[in-house]
Amino acid sequence: MFQSFDVTADPTQGPARLATLRTRMADERLDAFLVPRADAHQGEYVAECDKRLEWLTGFTGSAGFCIALADIAGVFVDGRYRNQVRQQVSLDHFTPVHWPEVQPGPWLLEQLPDGGRIGFDPWLHTAAEMEKLAKALGDGFELVASDNLVDLLWEGRPTAPHGRIVPHDIEFSGKSHADKRQELAAELRKAGQKVAVLTLSDSIAWLLNIRGDDIPHIPVVQGFALLHDDARVDLFTHPARDRDISDHLGPEVRLLPDAEFGAALAALDGPVRVDKASAPLAVGRILEEAGLAIVWGEDPCILPKAAKNAVEVEGARQAHLRDAVAMVEFLTWFDATVPATRITEIDVVTQLETQRRAGNTLMDISFETIAGSGPNGAIMHYRVSEETSRHLQEGELIVVDSGGQYRDGTTDITRTLPIGAVGEEEKTCFTRVLQGMIAISRAHWPKGLAGRDLDALARFPLWVAHQDFNHGTGHGVGSYLSVHEGPQRISKVSEVALVPGMILSNEPGYYRDGAFGIRLENLIVVEPAEVPEGGDADREMLRFETLTWVPIDRRLVVVEMLSRDERAWLNGYHATVLDKLADQVSPAAKAWLTAACAPV
Amino acid sequence: MFQSFDVTADPTQGPARLATLRTRMADERLDAFLVPRADAHQGEYVAECDKRLEWLTGFTGSAGFCIALADIAGVFVDGRYRNQVRQQVSLDHFTPVHWPEVQPGPWLLEQLPDGGRIGFDPWLHTAAEMEKLAKALGDGFELVASDNLVDLLWEGRPTAPHGRIVPHDIEFSGKSHADKRQELAAELRKAGQKVAVLTLSDSIAWLLNIRGDDIPHIPVVQGFALLHDDARVDLFTHPARDRDISDHLGPEVRLLPDAEFGAALAALDGPVRVDKASAPLAVGRILEEAGLAIVWGEDPCILPKAAKNAVEVEGARQAHLRDAVAMVEFLTWFDATVPATRITEIDVVTQLETQRRAGNTLMDISFETIAGSGPNGAIMHYRVSEETSRHLQEGELIVVDSGGQYRDGTTDITRTLPIGAVGEEEKTCFTRVLQGMIAISRAHWPKGLAGRDLDALARFPLWVAHQDFNHGTGHGVGSYLSVHEGPQRISKVSEVALVPGMILSNEPGYYRDGAFGIRLENLIVVEPAEVPEGGDADREMLRFETLTWVPIDRRLVVVEMLSRDERAWLNGYHATVLDKLADQVSPAAKAWLTAACAPV
Repeated sequence: MFQSFDVTADPTQGPARLATLRTRMADERLDAFLVPRADAHQGEYVAECDKRLEWLTGFTGSAGFCIALADIAGVFVDGRYRNQVRQQVSLDHFTPVHWPEVQPGPWLLEQLPDGGRIGFDPWLHTAAEMEKLAKALGDGFELVASDNLVDLLWEGRPTAPHGRIVPHDIEFSGKSHADKRQELAAELRKAGQKVAVLTLSDSIAWLLNIRGDDIPHIPVVQGFALLHDDARVDLFTHPARDRDISDHLGPEVRLLPDAEFGAALAALDGPVRVDKASAPLAVGRILEEAGLAIVWGEDPCILPKAAKNAVEVEGARQAHLRDAVAMVEFLTWFDATVPATRITEIDVVTQLETQRRAGNTLMDISFETIAGSGPNGAIMHYRVSEETSRHLQEGELIVVDSGGQYRDGTTDITRTLPIGAVGEEEKTCFTRVLQGMIAISRAHWPKGLAGRDLDALARFPLWVAHQDFNHGTGHGVGSYLSVHEGPQRISKVSEVALVPGMILSNEPGYYRDGAFGIRLENLIVVEPAEVPEGGDADREMLRFETLTWVPIDRRLVVVEMLSRDERAWLNGYHATVLDKLADQVSPAAKAWLTAACAPV
Repeated sequence: MFQSFDVTADPTQGPARLATLRTRMADERLDAFLVPRADAHQGEYVAECDKRLEWLTGFTGSAGFCIALADIAGVFVDGRYRNQVRQQVSLDHFTPVHWPEVQPGPWLLEQLPDGGRIGFDPWLHTAAEMEKLAKALGDGFELVASDNLVDLLWEGRPTAPHGRIVPHDIEFSGKSHADKRQELAAELRKAGQKVAVLTLSDSIAWLLNIRGDDIPHIPVVQGFALLHDDARVDLFTHPARDRDISDHLGPEVRLLPDAEFGAALAALDGPVRVDKASAPLAVGRILEEAGLAIVWGEDPCILPKAAKNAVEVEGARQAHLRDAVAMVEFLTWFDATVPATRITEIDVVTQLETQRRAGNTLMDISFETIAGSGPNGAIMHYRVSEETSRHLQEGELIVVDSGGQYRDGTTDITRTLPIGAVGEEEKTCFTRVLQGMIAISRAHWPKGLAGRDLDALARFPLWVAHQDFNHGTGHGVGSYLSVHEGPQRISKVSEVALVPGMILSNEPGYYRDGAFGIRLENLIVVEPAEVPEGGDADREMLRFETLTWVPIDRRLVVVEMLSRDERAWLNGYHATVLDKLADQVSPAAKAWLTAACAPV
């Protein structure tokens, strides 16, 4: 199993570790020390050696940070983790803080009214982050870049990951790394930049067409890279890798030990492009100390990585079909099992991963499956563990949000299922969520708009009922890379224009605290819209092609709530699902699928 | 009649006037001179004395400018006026320029590759505008603030307007000018600003609860004002006004001749707040020369003016009901007249204004009525004149966009009407436009969103058919002030959060060049949404209350295209219209109304 259900929280160790940290802080004359969950690559998942926040506090959530002072240690967590943090940390020693409502600057000003010295590891914080903190704190505070005190104290700290480096073949990437390097180098030359610093692991993986297994669920190689304006790349990564890929990388890409990255930065020549939003503060400091001109600019891989080429989009279509077969086998099993058989949320996750593995092309799950039944469904980022796993109860809904990593694409799908007969309120809310998902699926829009400009379409059916959901409508998705990829999003804060090839999720939801949750999610890809009969021939418009083909539960649809067009979309979707999958699944699943795809 | 249908264009005079301007430019060693349509108050309509662009070129459109050089004179007009400008100016002497696609900076760089001296009247251009131009031109150009050369040459130039100043009573304004002045003064004191410069006539009218008739269709008094941080106001305006309103203004508001405004600016003390987006460049220059500190900040009247108070909203409701009576009488006449009787677009405008005047409360029309039949309907800002007026043809649509100025509110309504039986394509497009209008009418949304976040709702039904409209979905509307008021808008460029009391238009459309046009428009006001049964009690949401109650033509609705909710909205709307108006209209109109409001 890729997924584990262990309860890893350990509130018992934190207090002693906090005490040693404070002693060390006193030695360094630090009034505070920052312990983030982030690593130097600002990725969503971190390696074991980077779980400093968990080591110190016991908190295992995927985002947050601790600010340790002599007499208080704030653990900053967002709305997803308000309850979890209280179970995982010793509340006698750690103080949960509501972040981002409370920002570290104002909190520090309150705790240290006379100012002080704030220590931090400059490799774990971005330039933008520390600039914001410095601005919030104003005079009276000193931000002290220091060794990482946690690393100095952490006995038995795991070594840094150094897994395989695997070529990502042209049949999946669609473009050689030489071509990618040349194109970006031309961009650098045009801008008068000699080199771009790359610190995001998925940018490096995309650029060099490499994949790895350093980090769970995201097939990247942890490292840093320098892209020179002559298209050469220096890749700095852990030296103890077990595979030689010099054939793949060729003579223009040098593989160097990560310990040499700092010195290589200092030895550069000419204007250096650095992404303030993602590069560690240390990068800028080293360049400044070496007297180099820094040009703050976006990581040049971000936009071309987001706009998938035709090979990547076709790969995504294929990966989604294989993933759909697994989903349909799972759904067949589910309906044959509940409510008659008493099963748990963990059983659901296990069965789904088993089906995904059955195809023999699954490289990993793309994130830990969310399987939340009844009130657990209302916890948006629920992670099922041995402690939280509920038995599925008749009359409840279960939200199943999961995905797979395949060499040709990354999937992410959510379906909400009834356990036996469910109430009318659940069906009404489900239908509104479905209407929002259909609106995004059907949308055409004028070229140039951003996700923000479409977000309302997914929410309107809920809004008119005075309902909404507290997450974005859609996030970007990588191509056998991170399941959460920027900059494309469908969200009220997304200002980046959508362009063809961008893959996104389309996942409206509805959550009623303590009662039930609903979410539906398909992946979609932006493409040029053809002008239909009667359309305006002179308008350049875009649309989404749907990538995910798995039945949406008809038993939860209040058909009378649908417009003629919405009903036609749903029936058309199911007809396509049946057409694409009927011959790919087992006989039992084919029978189930046929019924599940009948018109409403 | 408030509206005239004269053809005022006069291409014959321009060439000689341009020649005299060029002689004068040479005397002043100017290589170019800017002649904008704008006046010092940046309003939508200008007084006769400010029609410099028309005097010089013949062009009468409501926006644009001329840049006169020794050998070329560019007339910059936007998409609305591409055809009109070619008919109104002498094309041998003036060169139409596609604005804003071509900006004045790049155009000047092309015409004057060696740089030059650009003359302009600093009272007619804002600081932001000239800053942008200076930046685009770069070194090599000198921007020369000068006397207005057109004014020096214009023989028989009308005198500046000096109409009545009329108190806008508390029964309409809902708040005394003393209270408004005190509130804004407190804001100035909090910001450490000693005085705010007001140059927008509608801001001054709002602040002092005064109205006037200096300008057609916008009941303002042209002038400048200084709001001091102790709540005193100095109002600078043409001295030859025929009414003493010192009783209304009281001792804290001084009425001063506009000629003294410049000296008063120079004599100020302390930080002065100036709105870069609207204040003439001259204001900043005078303050700078006097050594005063300028704080660039928004005109403090803009937001409170936009968010109408309860009295203003109730006034708007009443004004709209009276306006609706006029509209219903007009629509009754229309259906009794066409297609049997041969009438023109001018007949339509005349009849409508006659009905509006019949109630004896109409102060003015709020803009020149647009009545575009057949292909004229596709011209978004069509102005009917003796030359363009078409006979209404059976089988065509006519777009009628009009409004009234009443002391309790400003109206703006568009209806699209069939002339006899019309084609299915027109009905299909009409229904999509209606669906967009219904979506905005029904919307609830989380507090904090801007018009941009709702804009897609009005366009989605068109978008999915690969159609759209090239104007905003809605503009702000004043309270017995300008029918186009900022900052509230429903538009992809509107970032200002919607707040209760803001009045906007809801006016999606569809335009097929050379064929037909469709637009529907109601006014709406933002208000807090109550939580309905089943809604989330903890969500703070807003909604629109509809102000306009006039039937939407049922004959153009393809009922099968409507969802259950859309159909319910339309039938509910018509039931309310009938309920509100049946006893207010003539017997003939009541009969017409009853049929027009029958459920679909």
